Amino acid sequence: MKPSSILSLLVLAAVLLVLFDRPATSPSPQILATEPAVATSTPLEPVPAQPSPDAALRNKALSAGLKPLPAGPGPVTGNALTPERIALGRQLFFEPRLSSSHLISCHTCHNLALGGDDNLPTSVGHGWQRGPRNAPTVYNAVYNTAQFWDGRAADLKAQAKGPIQAAVEMANAPEQAVATLRSMPEYVENFTSAFPDDQDPLSFDNLTKAIEAYEATLVTPNAPFDRWLQGEDDALNPLAKQGVARFVDKGCTACHNGVNVGGQAYFPFGLIRKPAERIRPPADKGRFAVTHTPSDEYVFRAAPLRNIALTAPYFHSGQVWSLEEAIAVMGSAQLGVDLTDADIAPIAAFLHSLTGVPPQIDYPMLPVEAATTPKPRL
Amino acid sequence: MKPSSILSLLVLAAVLLVLFDRPATSPSPQILATEPAVATSTPLEPVPAQPSPDAALRNKALSAGLKPLPAGPGPVTGNALTPERIALGRQLFFEPRLSSSHLISCHTCHNLALGGDDNLPTSVGHGWQRGPRNAPTVYNAVYNTAQFWDGRAADLKAQAKGPIQAAVEMANAPEQAVATLRSMPEYVENFTSAFPDDQDPLSFDNLTKAIEAYEATLVTPNAPFDRWLQGEDDALNPLAKQGVARFVDKGCTACHNGVNVGGQAYFPFGLIRKPAERIRPPADKGRFAVTHTPSDEYVFRAAPLRNIALTAPYFHSGQVWSLEEAIAVMGSAQLGVDLTDADIAPIAAFLHSLTGVPPQIDYPMLPVEAATTPKPRL
Repeated sequence: MKPSSILSLLVLAAVLLVLFDRPATSPSPQILATEPAVATSTPLEPVPAQPSPDAALRNKALSAGLKPLPAGPGPVTGNALTPERIALGRQLFFEPRLSSSHLISCHTCHNLALGGDDNLPTSVGHGWQRGPRNAPTVYNAVYNTAQFWDGRAADLKAQAKGPIQAAVEMANAPEQAVATLRSMPEYVENFTSAFPDDQDPLSFDNLTKAIEAYEATLVTPNAPFDRWLQGEDDALNPLAKQGVARFVDKGCTACHNGVNVGGQAYFPFGLIRKPAERIRPPADKGRFAVTHTPSDEYVFRAAPLRNIALTAPYFHSGQVWSLEEAIAVMGSAQLGVDLTDADIAPIAAFLHSLTGVPPQIDYPMLPVEAATTPKPRL
Repeated sequence: MKPSSILSLLVLAAVLLVLFDRPATSPSPQILATEPAVATSTPLEPVPAQPSPDAALRNKALSAGLKPLPAGPGPVTGNALTPERIALGRQLFFEPRLSSSHLISCHTCHNLALGGDDNLPTSVGHGWQRGPRNAPTVYNAVYNTAQFWDGRAADLKAQAKGPIQAAVEMANAPEQAVATLRSMPEYVENFTSAFPDDQDPLSFDNLTKAIEAYEATLVTPNAPFDRWLQGEDDALNPLAKQGVARFVDKGCTACHNGVNVGGQAYFPFGLIRKPAERIRPPADKGRFAVTHTPSDEYVFRAAPLRNIALTAPYFHSGQVWSLEEAIAVMGSAQLGVDLTDADIAPIAAFLHSLTGVPPQIDYPMLPVEAATTPKPRL
């Protein structure tokens, strides 16, 4: 044995000795993590579980159908959330060449820096045309029962087909979008990796499946309300807790419940009182255009309220900029009550507590165009 | 002294001994880096340095003024690249609320996923208006002698003032942009951190300084050509090496030299032969509009050629989509020669080798609007 090897053994032995005879000061975090988290001066007696002072309110919220948002991608059907598919979907979500102008991507109207929407009354699309409705947030959209304000798309992959083709949005044709991607070898490769069992991996259906896979990862868990719902009493301030109580007691949870605090069912906008025409323009009859059923006139999907503090202006018409005004409008239109500041301020504080933690967004690099890539049409 | 402290000293002494008497096997990478890289069975004789077969070509390239792109932020003057300033600049670079519509950001036309430009002939701005010239890449722009095709802005902070105010781009006023940012408490805080010594941190000047600080980090080192220039013979394929020789021999390096392979000086577009009017429209007289000097008619800053394979279409008019055609145009207009495929193919291969490694882009979250935030004007 060389002298250096003997020394190595000596070091090892010394390190082991130190580990098992550590002073209380300057501990290694790794070691401490496996030790019981008690102060050295505290006797080792079990602390009786204190009932949380918020237990009753928490039970009220849970009983009314409010639920914490799970971490990790939301549920999809008929799609597989493989890393390859999510990575491809991330490229496509930010891909302006899906539009005929090569300028507008999903992200143009669903800006992940701005709460997942564009913060405009209604969106701006091809040729600076104005869309008919306010862009909903893409964050947590995977938890909506269906997509669009009128629920006309069953899920995110069906939704993604809409704006690409809409003349006032991306103004493209499916064949043109597919031809554009197919012209770039890197996309051909990425679709093959993302859909390895498909005869024709680079299809319009798969394009939207990949976008859905990425969008399923755009969830914002750990909002103060979620942490509170899971037992962290201090996560909400007293006003927000009062707001939780008011939100349930006033009946808001009748429509805004579930994981997404809305987004799960359809209701007439103006159930009790007709909102101002500025806010509910007569021409947009909502879900009626989907079902052609008279009872669906002015019916919309209940807005999901997560991150609502980030996504003004409000309602499908995008004409209300203040959260407080939006709460008042809802009180009048849906509940037939004139809410006062005593109700509105706590409810607003509760709604602010629904702002979650967005994922880290790694902006993708996109494949380079080839000679055969269709040219932008502006 | 506690037993544990004595043991710690013992360990330290042992570690030091080991470091100075290391066995040749299982070395620590940190240590190896300072040792000669020899296999254990090789006798310790000095290996004579082999002259690289590419040495002559490399010297030719270096002598012609071509230089590797350094890693790390590029040089700025009158600005400090603090982490706070760069982080603020990243927010501002992606900030659509710097435009009057709240829809257009720096990134709209300088898309970091597409080589740092928009891959359109000329850019689309407010109201879908078309800009007069092709958007140059923001990557490595910090190495240009001045900004814009005509060099009318001395540096990136001066450049950033242009598009915010241009009626066909972001169509905003400096006061409005500042008022918009000032309405959001998070921006007030971030400007104060980024400009701690300023009486009035949130100013239009500081806004553009922060953008410059971020843009200085948008460099793409380690292109195959850079690695080759630094001695890695295999980083270029034979055709690209042939292209390096052609690029120098034909005289391209007269205008395209330096770290950015261009971007360092002004030259008439059409030095020898007048380009087609499609490519050099008569109405745009280039730098003449800046200097009003007749000899500056149709003078432009030599295009920086880094990442040129990613930024079609080419020239200030954006009318040439093929890199090969662009090379031919340059041969004719600037050198008065009709380049053949035998020249164009290798030069194109060389230009492809100028595609560097972009930094990881962490997409920022942007501050939430307040009640006092000016509304978008669409």
